[in-house]
Amino acid sequence: MPTHPEPHQMLREIHEQPQAIRETLEKEGPNIAEVASILRERRPAMVILAARGTSDNAGTYLRYIVGAVNGMVVAPAAPSLLTVYRSRMQIEDTVVIGISQSGKATDVIEVLEASRDLGAMTIALTNTADSPIVQTAEFALLTHAREEKAVAATKTYTTALAVLYQLAACWAQRPDLQESIYEVPAAIEAVFADLEPHIASRSERYTFMDTCTVLARGVNYATAKEIGLKLQECCLINPEPWSAADYMHGPIAALQPGSPVMLLAPQGPSLGSMLEVARAVKERQGEMIVFSDDDEALSDARVPMKLPYLGQSYWSPIVIAVAGQLFAYYLAVHKDLNPDKPRGLNKVTLTY
Amino acid sequence: MPTHPEPHQMLREIHEQPQAIRETLEKEGPNIAEVASILRERRPAMVILAARGTSDNAGTYLRYIVGAVNGMVVAPAAPSLLTVYRSRMQIEDTVVIGISQSGKATDVIEVLEASRDLGAMTIALTNTADSPIVQTAEFALLTHAREEKAVAATKTYTTALAVLYQLAACWAQRPDLQESIYEVPAAIEAVFADLEPHIASRSERYTFMDTCTVLARGVNYATAKEIGLKLQECCLINPEPWSAADYMHGPIAALQPGSPVMLLAPQGPSLGSMLEVARAVKERQGEMIVFSDDDEALSDARVPMKLPYLGQSYWSPIVIAVAGQLFAYYLAVHKDLNPDKPRGLNKVTLTY
Repeated sequence: MPTHPEPHQMLREIHEQPQAIRETLEKEGPNIAEVASILRERRPAMVILAARGTSDNAGTYLRYIVGAVNGMVVAPAAPSLLTVYRSRMQIEDTVVIGISQSGKATDVIEVLEASRDLGAMTIALTNTADSPIVQTAEFALLTHAREEKAVAATKTYTTALAVLYQLAACWAQRPDLQESIYEVPAAIEAVFADLEPHIASRSERYTFMDTCTVLARGVNYATAKEIGLKLQECCLINPEPWSAADYMHGPIAALQPGSPVMLLAPQGPSLGSMLEVARAVKERQGEMIVFSDDDEALSDARVPMKLPYLGQSYWSPIVIAVAGQLFAYYLAVHKDLNPDKPRGLNKVTLTY
Repeated sequence: MPTHPEPHQMLREIHEQPQAIRETLEKEGPNIAEVASILRERRPAMVILAARGTSDNAGTYLRYIVGAVNGMVVAPAAPSLLTVYRSRMQIEDTVVIGISQSGKATDVIEVLEASRDLGAMTIALTNTADSPIVQTAEFALLTHAREEKAVAATKTYTTALAVLYQLAACWAQRPDLQESIYEVPAAIEAVFADLEPHIASRSERYTFMDTCTVLARGVNYATAKEIGLKLQECCLINPEPWSAADYMHGPIAALQPGSPVMLLAPQGPSLGSMLEVARAVKERQGEMIVFSDDDEALSDARVPMKLPYLGQSYWSPIVIAVAGQLFAYYLAVHKDLNPDKPRGLNKVTLTY
């Protein structure tokens, strides 16, 4: 395990997540409930999402959580329809959610502006109360992650997921789900206590890995994309995150024996599907790194990463994302890279 | 230019496209008009798309054409919400379009089935009249491309685009657009007459290219994805197709001097945006292969590919796709690969 005479910002911020989520739930809870009750009144026909990068991964989570809990379709915005083609989109019955950690993402703001002008309900989700996106949208939801200094987003991602989860739960008037989210900080603390030392040491094996397939299904497809992005940003490798269904549909044909495949396979509705994928990867002699709370899923892993029991919950993506952040962080350290200052990245991305 | 003592199926089928599109428009015209009039009656709130591979690229085209012409949002299906989470999606006011050339794609059929049970209007688009997908959906739209023997889809893709274009035009009751599609076969014939010899010879330069970025915006984002897929299937390289806006948002930072970038930049609403991208690529000394009918866009290309005048049309993706198919075909021949039998691919893909 590498030593940290001066721990990086990224590691410090990873460890701040239980507290950041507690603060976000406490401070933002009443506002989330209020926005949810307005959603119930206005009864939008669908949700449109505008976001890029890590925020787009939060949007992928939104797509599945709102689909599963609220039965609503979430469509990604095609910004050019609004900004290039100037199409008069029929979106009066729609809620458009724009996500930007900094609150400054230019094209997300443009989509919110154009949508508002066309009569849509607009919601901004950001970590920055005093930001242009909050000025633009009709409603704002805030994460209370405090300032994030590391370039790779960690606590702003998981707090955004907590807000989106709670929005879906309140919107559906599901007190069971609303209560359940309060288990998350303790589950993350269990990851720190039980899994982090294991991740720190076992990740060294992958120091010279040059690519990695990351697979999940359902709500954790977002986690696969987000862990892929962390590996890319912090470790300068080019991982391939796939929905397990899409991966089985073709790309698995190209899997070489010994190639690393990370499987996110928590208990829950998608476990059966992930166990099938694991069998197929094993057949082709792929090397499996498995993050799971299920013993069968862990049994065939070359490197098993045992998660705390996730209770078949819709919030498992928050906990698994933290485990993935730790993997990306320690792998960067093994590679002698500085995870706080990834090459060629800036904290705030302004789209042209 | 390579010689073809025994031309490949793929080249023969590429050349059949003007005729296949004429036949499709003629034979399917009345049915398209009928389905469009039912869409006008039922007034769906949005469109959901189920498709994989080449058919998913046709779906990307659908997303932009229906967005631009009909002002409708098109959302990709998240099959797991229906098949894994068994969510009771609120999609009674929705039309679900499933696309499968063979009509056998298992998960597309599952999505149509589940959607029909939830009360959605369902439409299948396929080249195979006698197929399970036609049995499943309430309505069927057929392409009349006749049997496609080469594994890489060509005429089934462009005829599908022609059907989707005409569906959008009839749905919007736009006789100007409905007429305009009949210009497509002649435009493709102009590509064969004027551009094909140039593509056949100039593509040799890229024989040892190991990757390629393919950029477009708006309706031609579908074309970028489809040309990327043809290059992958036929030439065994791993191209990166991007929406030009997403590319400018980050990935361009990694562009190395001399790296090949293919730009699809026809006249029309997205041209200004593509000219900006071209400037940025030039600044970073990327090598540009430009497919365009605009002299300014062609002027900075290392290899300009001059297209016939595309009339600022929504159907330009059909013509540019053909130029891209030719590029992928001739590049495969230069690489001494057999474009009819790509390694590790089957004609019919059955998802697990």
